[in-house]
Amino acid sequence: MEKWRAADRLLKFSSRFASAVNWNNSCKSKQGKYFYSVATTVHRNPLFSSISPDDISYFKTILGERGVVQDALALDAANTDWMGKYRGSSKLLLQPKNTEEVSQILKYCNSRCLAVVPQGGNTGLVGGSVPVFDEVIINVGLMRNILSFDKVIVSGVLVCEAGCILENLISFLDDEGFIMPLDLGAKGSCQIGGNVSTNAGGLRLLRYGSLHGSVLGLEAVLANGTVLDMLGTLRKDNTGYDLKHLFIGSEGSLGIVTKVSILTPPKLSSVNIAFLACEDYTSCQKLLLEAKKKLGGILSAFEFLDSDAMSLVLKHLDGVRNPLPPSIHNFYILIETTGSNETFDKENLEAFLLHSVESGLVANGVLAQDINQASSFWHIREGLPEALMKAGAVYKYDLSLPLEKMYDLVEEMRVQIGPAAKVVAYGHLGDGNLHLNISAPAYDDNILAKIEPFVYEWTSKNRGSISAEHGLGLMKAAKIHYSKSPETVRLMIDFDYCVFELLPDTSCLDDNHSIICLCLSA
Amino acid sequence: MEKWRAADRLLKFSSRFASAVNWNNSCKSKQGKYFYSVATTVHRNPLFSSISPDDISYFKTILGERGVVQDALALDAANTDWMGKYRGSSKLLLQPKNTEEVSQILKYCNSRCLAVVPQGGNTGLVGGSVPVFDEVIINVGLMRNILSFDKVIVSGVLVCEAGCILENLISFLDDEGFIMPLDLGAKGSCQIGGNVSTNAGGLRLLRYGSLHGSVLGLEAVLANGTVLDMLGTLRKDNTGYDLKHLFIGSEGSLGIVTKVSILTPPKLSSVNIAFLACEDYTSCQKLLLEAKKKLGGILSAFEFLDSDAMSLVLKHLDGVRNPLPPSIHNFYILIETTGSNETFDKENLEAFLLHSVESGLVANGVLAQDINQASSFWHIREGLPEALMKAGAVYKYDLSLPLEKMYDLVEEMRVQIGPAAKVVAYGHLGDGNLHLNISAPAYDDNILAKIEPFVYEWTSKNRGSISAEHGLGLMKAAKIHYSKSPETVRLMIDFDYCVFELLPDTSCLDDNHSIICLCLSA
Repeated sequence: MEKWRAADRLLKFSSRFASAVNWNNSCKSKQGKYFYSVATTVHRNPLFSSISPDDISYFKTILGERGVVQDALALDAANTDWMGKYRGSSKLLLQPKNTEEVSQILKYCNSRCLAVVPQGGNTGLVGGSVPVFDEVIINVGLMRNILSFDKVIVSGVLVCEAGCILENLISFLDDEGFIMPLDLGAKGSCQIGGNVSTNAGGLRLLRYGSLHGSVLGLEAVLANGTVLDMLGTLRKDNTGYDLKHLFIGSEGSLGIVTKVSILTPPKLSSVNIAFLACEDYTSCQKLLLEAKKKLGGILSAFEFLDSDAMSLVLKHLDGVRNPLPPSIHNFYILIETTGSNETFDKENLEAFLLHSVESGLVANGVLAQDINQASSFWHIREGLPEALMKAGAVYKYDLSLPLEKMYDLVEEMRVQIGPAAKVVAYGHLGDGNLHLNISAPAYDDNILAKIEPFVYEWTSKNRGSISAEHGLGLMKAAKIHYSKSPETVRLMIDFDYCVFELLPDTSCLDDNHSIICLCLSA
Repeated sequence: MEKWRAADRLLKFSSRFASAVNWNNSCKSKQGKYFYSVATTVHRNPLFSSISPDDISYFKTILGERGVVQDALALDAANTDWMGKYRGSSKLLLQPKNTEEVSQILKYCNSRCLAVVPQGGNTGLVGGSVPVFDEVIINVGLMRNILSFDKVIVSGVLVCEAGCILENLISFLDDEGFIMPLDLGAKGSCQIGGNVSTNAGGLRLLRYGSLHGSVLGLEAVLANGTVLDMLGTLRKDNTGYDLKHLFIGSEGSLGIVTKVSILTPPKLSSVNIAFLACEDYTSCQKLLLEAKKKLGGILSAFEFLDSDAMSLVLKHLDGVRNPLPPSIHNFYILIETTGSNETFDKENLEAFLLHSVESGLVANGVLAQDINQASSFWHIREGLPEALMKAGAVYKYDLSLPLEKMYDLVEEMRVQIGPAAKVVAYGHLGDGNLHLNISAPAYDDNILAKIEPFVYEWTSKNRGSISAEHGLGLMKAAKIHYSKSPETVRLMIDFDYCVFELLPDTSCLDDNHSIICLCLSA
C-alpha cells in the first residue's frame, strides 16, 4: 500500500500545461503554416530527463527495431497536429503492439523520469495529441485487433484494441448487422482509444448518447505501468466505483487506454433524411421539441447551420448546391431518422414535415429520395470544416450552451467582431452543441482580442461548456475554470497527484489551477 | 492545497465494512424477523466518537428542534432496512433542509470524528441504507424541491433536490409530457438522490440506458463539508475529468448527493405490451435479438420469468392469472414497446409476434388489448418479490451475466441445492440482469452453504457482476473482489483515502480489500 501513498511521489506522465497560449505567440514555419510557439508560454518541467542512447537500446529490447521510430519524416508527422497548428519536438516515437509493451514502456519512462504523450489517430482539434516539448510519443496504432464480437449471443458487445480505426470498426459491424454508437468526420483516421479518451461526441450522440453510456469496459495502463483491467462486457455492474468513467474524456492524462468494450446497437434498415429551412432560431428550437415528440425513437440526427455557413459551403466546396429553391433562409436543419420499418418511418417523417410546414415552423423543406441525395445533404453539413479552411484563417470554438441562449452568442459575437471577420455557426443542435467559427482573411491579434476572453466569459456566465466535445488539450487546459468550479478542479489535481501519482507542473499550484493534460487524440 | 494532501488525514464518513456477514450470523428479533447480527462480524472503528449532549445542542442550532430526531419509534424505523434484515443502533437522525445544512453537519461530524450514514428512502436490498452501529443518520427526505424544468426551451432537463421521491418526479413529468428515464418497483418511497447514489437500474434501462448516460449533473457534499458543484445541465461537456460519474453508484461512500440534473425523454403516446411463452432459453435469447432488430427504437422492456417463478406468482398473489392458455411453458417473456404512432407501433409489434410464432421462437402469446390487461401483465413480473416473501425464506441474488450463460447458473444451482429449496429465476433479460432467488421454507445454514460462495465464484468465473443493480452495501462489500480486479479495488481505496480523506477501516488494509461503503439507499 505504502508505495501508492508515498508523500514523495515520482512523476509519471509529462506535464502538459498551457497558460496564455494564443495566436499572439504563433509564428510562421518554413512551410508557411502557423504553429504555436509554446516555448514562450509553457515551460518544460526541469525534472524531466532527456532521451539517452541507453533508453533507445532498452526500448529496442522491448519493441524490436520496428517499434522504435527515430526517422525524421515520421517524427515530423507525429510531432504535428493535423490542423498544422501545434508542433512538438519529440525525438522518439514508440509503437507498442500490445498492452504488456505499453506497460513496460510506461514503467521504464516512469523510473527514468521521461515525459510521455499518448497518441492515437492524431486528429484532435485542441493540440492535445502531439508533444509540447520532447516527450516520448507512444502511438497505439499497431494495436488494432478486434478481440470479440458476440452477435450470435445477442448483446452486440464489441471488444477491441485501442488502435482500431473507427471506420474499420464501422465496416466490421456493418457486415455483422450492427453499427457503432458514434460517428465522426474524422472516422477514417481516428482510433477508438482516442475516441474514448476524448469522449468523442459526433453525429449519433442525439440517438445513442455519450460514450459514458455505451462504453461497457476499458483496459488502461497507468503511468507507473499498472494494468487496470476494467474490461467488463456487462450492461450493469454496481460493484464499487465505476472507475472507467474517469478515463472516458480524461484525454490520456490518467493513463493510456489499451482495450475497449462497447455496446453496439443493431443496424436498422430504414434511414430517412430531410433538409429544411427555418426563418428564425425560435422555430429551430420548437422544431427540435416537436421532432423529439413526434419522431420519438427514430430521430437520429438534428443538425443545424446558419445562412452564413450555407453561403460558405456553396462558395468554397465544389459541386455542392442548396437542395432548396434559391432563396436565402436564415437557418437550415438536417433531420435524420433511423428505424426498422421503411414504410412506417417514411410516412411518420412525412406527416411530421407536413405538420411543421403547416404550422409555420418550417419555411421550406425536401426529403431525400435516394441515397445520393441523402449523401449530398450530409455533405453540406460535414463539408463545413473544409469550407472554412478554404475560406482563410479560422478561429474555432466548440461550445455547449443552453439551447435557448445558443444563438444569442452568435449574434453578440457578430456585433463584437464587426466587419473584420465573418461569424459562422453550425453544430449539433439536438445536443446543444454549437460550433462557432470566426472566419477571417488572415490571423490577426486584433480579431483574437475581440473573441477571447469574451467567448469564454459569455459561455461561463451562461453555465455552458467551453469544450463540448473537443476536449481541453493545450488550447484550453488553462481555461478549465470557465466551466468547472474551483472545488472540482482541485479534486482533479488531487486525483492526478494523490491517486495516479502524476507530477504536477509547478504552474498547477498557482491560482489558475490547470489539470495535467495529455491527450490521446481521437 | 496542503490541507488536501496532509499525510495525517482525518476520518470523514463512518467505515462500513462487511466481512463474512452471512445468515449464520442472523438472529431473531422480538418481532420474529431476522436481522443480521453484525456485531459478531464487523468491528466498530474505535476512532469514532460517540454522540454527546453538546453535539445534540450544536445540531439543534443548525437544524432547529424538528431536524434533530431522537424519538425511539422514528429511530427504530430509520435503523431498520425495509426487508427487516439489517438493523443498526443509531441514537440520532438528522434531517437537513438544504445543501448548506448538509455541509454544516458533515463539517461538524468530521471535526468531532462522528461516523455518519446517509439515508434516502431506505428501500435498498443490500443493507446499505441503515447504520451498522451508532452512526448519525443523515436523511435528505426534506430536500424535495423541484428546482427547474425546461420543457419550454426544449431539452427536458429536470433539476431537483436529492430527497424528491421518484414517483413524485414521474407524476410531475407526466403532467409536462415527459417521463423519467428510470422506473422501479420501489418508486413510491425511493428518492432520486438514492437512485443516483446506487446507480439504480430498473425497468427502463433497456431503452434509456444507465444513469451514467442520463444524469447530466450533480451537487454533492464531501465528508469534510465541501460542496462540489457539478450541477451542469448540458448534454456535452469535455472539460476535465467527469467527476460526477464517481458519485453515481458509489453508494454514498464518497459524499452525499444533494441535487441532481437529469435528462428526461418526452412521453410517447403509444405503449403496447405482449406476454409470450418460449419453450427453451435459446429461444428467449433469439427472440431478444429479433426484438432489438425488428422493434428497433420502440422496444422499451424485455423481461423474463421461468416456470417456477410463474407458479409462485399464481400460487401466492391474489387475483393473478396466467394470461396464456393453461399449459405450463418453461419461460415467459414480457415485451413492451413505446413509440409515437399508435397504429404503426401496434402493427409493427403484431407483425413481429406473428413472425416469431411462425418461426417457432414463441410457443404462445397475447397482446394486451387495454390498459387493464397491460397492468395485469406487468403485475405478474412486478409481483414476484412479494410472492417470494409470502412463500417463505428467500436468498436473493442480483447478478449480471453474459446472456448465453445466464440460465446455466440457474440450472446448476438447482442441481447444487437439490430438493431442499426452489430456485426461481426472473429479471431484466434485455439488460443481462438475472434476479436469482432461492426460496426455502425457512432460513437454513445448510442451504446457504450450498449457495455461497458457489454463486459468487460461478459469477466471477464467467466475468459477471455479483451486483448488477442493487449495489454492494453491507451484504457484499467484502465480496467486491469477485467482480473487480485487485488493482481497481486498490485504486478505489486510494480514492477514499487520498482524495476524499476518508478514514479507512483497519480491515481495509488486509488482503481482502473492501471499500468503505456507506449507502444512500434508493
